[in-house]
Amino acid sequence: MARQAIRILGIDPGLRRTGWGVVEVDGTRLSFVACGSVVTDDKAALAVRLVTIHDGLVGVVGDFAPHEAAVEATFVNRDASATLKLGQARGVALLVPARLGLTVAEYAPNSVKKTVTGTGHAEKAQIRAMIRYLLPKAAPKTADAADALAVAITHAHHRRARILSACYAR
Amino acid sequence: MARQAIRILGIDPGLRRTGWGVVEVDGTRLSFVACGSVVTDDKAALAVRLVTIHDGLVGVVGDFAPHEAAVEATFVNRDASATLKLGQARGVALLVPARLGLTVAEYAPNSVKKTVTGTGHAEKAQIRAMIRYLLPKAAPKTADAADALAVAITHAHHRRARILSACYAR
Repeated sequence: MARQAIRILGIDPGLRRTGWGVVEVDGTRLSFVACGSVVTDDKAALAVRLVTIHDGLVGVVGDFAPHEAAVEATFVNRDASATLKLGQARGVALLVPARLGLTVAEYAPNSVKKTVTGTGHAEKAQIRAMIRYLLPKAAPKTADAADALAVAITHAHHRRARILSACYAR
Repeated sequence: MARQAIRILGIDPGLRRTGWGVVEVDGTRLSFVACGSVVTDDKAALAVRLVTIHDGLVGVVGDFAPHEAAVEATFVNRDASATLKLGQARGVALLVPARLGLTVAEYAPNSVKKTVTGTGHAEKAQIRAMIRYLLPKAAPKTADAADALAVAITHAHHRRARILSACYAR
C-alpha cells in the first residue's frame, strides 16, 4: 500500500483569537505547512464574531486541505462568563472541520504539553522551543498559533501510536 | 409604507436538546408558525453533535424563512464543564442565523420571563400558560421548544418597543 502524507489542522479556539496550524505527516516525518490566527473585532456582536471565526477556519480548510483536525480541550477555571465565551468559540472550531468531513480529535492541554515537551507541566517557552525543534520552518507570530501547531503535533503523534498499535495487534 | 409581517426565530440552545420556535408579528398581532427541538445523540462525538444542531437549525431557517433571530442567553451556575458544553451548543445556535444573514438578538432568561409573564421570577408552568394564551395554536411538546417560543415572543415585544420609541423620537 502506498504511504500517503496526511495533513493535520490544529486549532486553539478563543473568542478574541483562534489560532490554527497545519502540519504534514509522512510516516515518521513531520513538516510545517502553515499557521496563523483568526482575530475577531471585540466591538462586534457575539454572533458576528462567531461568523468571523467560522469563515476564517473555512478559509484555512479550503486553502490547505487538511485530512484530519484536532482541537485543544482548553480548561478554564475562571468565571462562568469566560467559560461560556470560550465554549462558544470552541463550538464553532469543532463544527467547521466536522461539517467539512474531517475527523475531529480533542486533546487536553496537559496531553499537548506532555506530547510536545515530555512533561504535562511545561512552560509556554518550552513548548515554543520544541516547536522550533520539531518544525524548524515554522515561525508562529502569536501564542495561539504556536499552541495550535502543538495540538496538530500532538494529534500526529497520537494517530501514529494508534496505527502502530493496530499493526502489532494483528 | 405597507406593513410587512415579520417572522422571528427563537432558539433555546443546549447540547442535548436545542429548542426552536417561529412566530409571526404583523403590527400588534402575534401568531404561531412552528416549533420543535433538535435532539443530538449523546453517544456521538461532540463535533458530530454540533453538526446535528447546525444542520437542524439550517433546516428550520430554510423551512420557515424567519427574518430575525433571538437566542436565550442562558446562565448556568453549575460546574465549568456544563457551562462549556452549553457554550459550545450556544456558539452554533448564534452562528447559524448570523451566517444566513439574520440579525441575532440575545435575551437573558429573566428578561424572557418578565416579558412573557410580567415577572422575572416566573415558574415554568406560568410561562407555558402565557404561551398558550399568546399563541393559542402552539402546542410545544417539550420545555425547550416552549422556551424557544418564549424567546421569540420576547424579541417580538422588544423590537416593537424599539420601533415605537424610534417613531416618537422623530
